[in-house]
Amino acid sequence: MAESDIENLIGLLAKLPGLGPRSARRAALHLVKNRDRLMSPLARALAQTAETIRTCSDCGNLDSIDPCALCRDERRDRAVICVVEDVADLWAIERTASYRGLYHVLGGVLSALDGIGPDDLRVPHLATRADADAVREVILALPATVDGQTTAHYIGDRLAPLSITVSGIAHGVPVGGELDYLDDGTLQQALKARRPVAG
Amino acid sequence: MAESDIENLIGLLAKLPGLGPRSARRAALHLVKNRDRLMSPLARALAQTAETIRTCSDCGNLDSIDPCALCRDERRDRAVICVVEDVADLWAIERTASYRGLYHVLGGVLSALDGIGPDDLRVPHLATRADADAVREVILALPATVDGQTTAHYIGDRLAPLSITVSGIAHGVPVGGELDYLDDGTLQQALKARRPVAG
Repeated sequence: MAESDIENLIGLLAKLPGLGPRSARRAALHLVKNRDRLMSPLARALAQTAETIRTCSDCGNLDSIDPCALCRDERRDRAVICVVEDVADLWAIERTASYRGLYHVLGGVLSALDGIGPDDLRVPHLATRADADAVREVILALPATVDGQTTAHYIGDRLAPLSITVSGIAHGVPVGGELDYLDDGTLQQALKARRPVAG
Repeated sequence: MAESDIENLIGLLAKLPGLGPRSARRAALHLVKNRDRLMSPLARALAQTAETIRTCSDCGNLDSIDPCALCRDERRDRAVICVVEDVADLWAIERTASYRGLYHVLGGVLSALDGIGPDDLRVPHLATRADADAVREVILALPATVDGQTTAHYIGDRLAPLSITVSGIAHGVPVGGELDYLDDGTLQQALKARRPVAG
């Protein structure tokens, strides 16, 4: 017995990314002190989400309905599919509120080191979706890492036989970036991808 | 509808100390990906703890029983009471496994700025407990801050009429501490509280 309930809770909280044993204890105390306002609602939200959450069989997004709300949304442009590595990336793009097409979550990127091949990701399913009549463009919004760009190249090759545009998001100087502080690779990319200045 | 379940979950996670909106999203994704191993157990642990946890009416510790397991433990020395600010401090002392007496959680320290007086803390209850026949010593393990030390002085004065020892934990150079990097106050305290070297 002893304080096993709260020790058990601390042990579970410490497994969350970003929380270690010390911050898990702090979080547990905070929860206990805000029992009605935070602890019980969080318990309910977790139980509810654990029960209802599912992966959209179309795009790979997480939602409590399948197909997900994004795939069902009639106002979204069904001609464009944006390919992302993970649901977190989908959320990041949705937060910009500047994209109104559909998504395709790969669930990872190709990695020779980790032994992840195209069939471990949702690449075949992407090829099928991109082959549909309505699709006009596939945007590859994959990380600017070696594995991410390898994956982008692979998908580009794989979709080449289809008569659709395959584009990649731009690489260059981030907004607010000082040239002086940028790494050589980014600066090189930014120079190579230079564009005519409008005006 | 949309992804309201998971958005609600992220909103609640972001209220935990140490988690911001971004790390709450990461935690939520991690939970969804480890539904059976982490999400459901955490939901159960939260619901269970929210239901059972209570403040020990004797010492102020958190436990699912009242009096708490520490106060009930027959092997602990009932002659010594260690006064701490918060339950987190009690846990910290318990982790050292070097103290076998009882505790008294004040629930804060005196603070003129925040308008916290002795009656807002569990000081009167401490005076009652310390007056019991069995009690021989009260150890003040309060933070080495201005408010913490004010509280220690106040409690020392208040318990002075009782024929018991009131002691404070030592202030000085922390284990592993380099003198060169210490602040003047700590070094001053360490010099003032110097002790004869045994041997």
